[in-house]
Amino acid sequence: MKLTSIKESGKLAILGGKPVFNSLIPMVRPSLPPFKGIENRLKETFSSGLVTNAKYVELLEKKIAQYLNVKHAVCVANCTLGLILGIKALKLKGKIIVPSFTFCASVHALIWNNLTPIFVDCHQETFNIDLTSIEKYITKDTSAIMAVHIFGNPAQVEELNKIAHKYSLKVIYDAAHAFGSSYKNKPLAGFGEMEVFSLSPTKVLVAGEGGIVATNNKRLADEIRIGRDYGNPGNYNCEFVGLNARMLEISAIIALENLELLPERLVKRKKLINLYLDNLKNIPGISFQKIEKDSSSCYKDFAILIDPAKFGLDRNILALVLEKENISSRKYFFPPVHKQNAYEKEFIQENLVNTNFISEHILCLPLYNHMKEKDILNICQIIKKAYQYAPSIKEKLS
Amino acid sequence: MKLTSIKESGKLAILGGKPVFNSLIPMVRPSLPPFKGIENRLKETFSSGLVTNAKYVELLEKKIAQYLNVKHAVCVANCTLGLILGIKALKLKGKIIVPSFTFCASVHALIWNNLTPIFVDCHQETFNIDLTSIEKYITKDTSAIMAVHIFGNPAQVEELNKIAHKYSLKVIYDAAHAFGSSYKNKPLAGFGEMEVFSLSPTKVLVAGEGGIVATNNKRLADEIRIGRDYGNPGNYNCEFVGLNARMLEISAIIALENLELLPERLVKRKKLINLYLDNLKNIPGISFQKIEKDSSSCYKDFAILIDPAKFGLDRNILALVLEKENISSRKYFFPPVHKQNAYEKEFIQENLVNTNFISEHILCLPLYNHMKEKDILNICQIIKKAYQYAPSIKEKLS
Repeated sequence: MKLTSIKESGKLAILGGKPVFNSLIPMVRPSLPPFKGIENRLKETFSSGLVTNAKYVELLEKKIAQYLNVKHAVCVANCTLGLILGIKALKLKGKIIVPSFTFCASVHALIWNNLTPIFVDCHQETFNIDLTSIEKYITKDTSAIMAVHIFGNPAQVEELNKIAHKYSLKVIYDAAHAFGSSYKNKPLAGFGEMEVFSLSPTKVLVAGEGGIVATNNKRLADEIRIGRDYGNPGNYNCEFVGLNARMLEISAIIALENLELLPERLVKRKKLINLYLDNLKNIPGISFQKIEKDSSSCYKDFAILIDPAKFGLDRNILALVLEKENISSRKYFFPPVHKQNAYEKEFIQENLVNTNFISEHILCLPLYNHMKEKDILNICQIIKKAYQYAPSIKEKLS
Repeated sequence: MKLTSIKESGKLAILGGKPVFNSLIPMVRPSLPPFKGIENRLKETFSSGLVTNAKYVELLEKKIAQYLNVKHAVCVANCTLGLILGIKALKLKGKIIVPSFTFCASVHALIWNNLTPIFVDCHQETFNIDLTSIEKYITKDTSAIMAVHIFGNPAQVEELNKIAHKYSLKVIYDAAHAFGSSYKNKPLAGFGEMEVFSLSPTKVLVAGEGGIVATNNKRLADEIRIGRDYGNPGNYNCEFVGLNARMLEISAIIALENLELLPERLVKRKKLINLYLDNLKNIPGISFQKIEKDSSSCYKDFAILIDPAKFGLDRNILALVLEKENISSRKYFFPPVHKQNAYEKEFIQENLVNTNFISEHILCLPLYNHMKEKDILNICQIIKKAYQYAPSIKEKLS
């Protein structure tokens, strides 16, 4: 494909050139269905008055259970609340092994349940929980491992189950990023006690706000259904202390329509990812998240790692170069959870070498289902130029 | 007004007659705006892709702060999450005085914050927290009083502040029911550290799912804004352990339109309430929630108390009589929170005489903004007949 809006000879904006984009390329644009696709159901919902947790939520639960090939899918208001209710229903105790290289909500869900997070390192190439670091942190107080499919990249589900079995632990998944991913051609559900997916605006499948708890455990599913309605089993005599975590019908209607559109969107997304990979792979000092054989990632985010020694600039300067061209980027996850103000004093963990390294060298680039291929090519071109002109950029900034 | 569908001489359904209603009269029908009133904003939201916590949430916060006459109104996903985040932000400790005659969520919000509820009794006529029972439960571990405006009936805001001041306690309000109520012509906000309102489908003002934290305390408002976004102040370095409690734009759009319609709906609602009161007041054994002078209730629910000795039937039988006529009713709140399975073992409280009495004699009747006056007259007529035919009904059921 031929680049149209940037010339090989054009100056980078950080060096005084004109920005390649006139308006900001955001990190993500939510994938919503065309309004006309949902208009009739919205009108019906408005005239019935049943706006929350009614027939479209039920229908979404059926369709998602089919898609994920699990017995039960429970819709909740968002992924964080699904994690909180699921962890509560599993009656986990004591200490939970969790990666620090994750979104804060994974760990928040433990804290709201009065559990102690034991932060472990991530793998340097896959960015997922590092198996070698798990076993040394398991003690008699450990009751579960929470794994996260980072950016949609499947964690090592089979190996995690082996470790869990060996120590009689439960495995739960924060699958917030992973709707659309698969392992051995199976969606990422049914591997742990539960997988909790997010359908929030930045995800590959969007409901607006929403989460899904997927499980084959009927008791667990029942308890989350009760839990999302305050712990009220229907007679207003609460069995336990729940939450309001109901999903709006409107969110379910959006997700149902988006679910139909998902297969073609995943194909398009794969194409966009390949465009990024092809056009960045030969630039020295740039590497990518490794997706293992047998795994397929939905690429909720597309991340690159910058090695300043080879690239000539560090991640922060590259972010600035992009910003000047009107291209968003995101240092994500930075800081890692164990270094965040909410955690660093109470939950010290010293040796998370890969986590610290990745967190300091990572940069996520714009990606959304309906992104223009041309825009990706331009972004890659800018990054290549940043490499080529690294000395001038450093001089300019010094 | 003349009754049209039930004759004075007609038999009650429980005694073999035809039900007065062909289809079920529900407890509540959510008050939604006409679809065309929100269609343009919905379409705009869909085309912008900004579906959560964006400009309409911000606009709703402004309009609600004006309506409530407070400095800050913070939109959250629902009232329960608003209570949880608000209590956390207030850094309450130890024991909190709370009525047992309330919806479970008031107390759940304390438990999620690891606080100990001290259940106190309610007033026998207003159903609100009983001032005389508060002081004897205050100890050095007490940090706050949570009051609730039951069914929209204003709690004794001035007296509560006096007690709180005397013992250096904070007062917070679960104002879930109270949007549309007022005290001395002021909306029920700004009396405590915060008031948390619900905009869920059963409320007088509906967003779909939604809650509002109203406060004059800027620090508190700021912290809830951060808290609803995981505790992330914007740089992804969480200051504390928050939640996802964002409100959907779609909910804000619904609430904005409903807010415009609220004044006329409150007038209509008042008329419906007066119809109930006028047509039930002369039936022996029926009494009503007392609304104090200077107070105006939005009547989120319309409740009656049944004295079986005078009425001839108990509350449970009256509910059955109504059910046979296709009229919903609700024993609400029953059981009171301290007797619910989630609480009765851990938090014993023996002497809640009024709470237990009201809980066992109360029945809430159908009420919604667009209810037909004729339907209310028919319901009253059925209740009157139940009184008249009490001996036959008892015989039939024996």
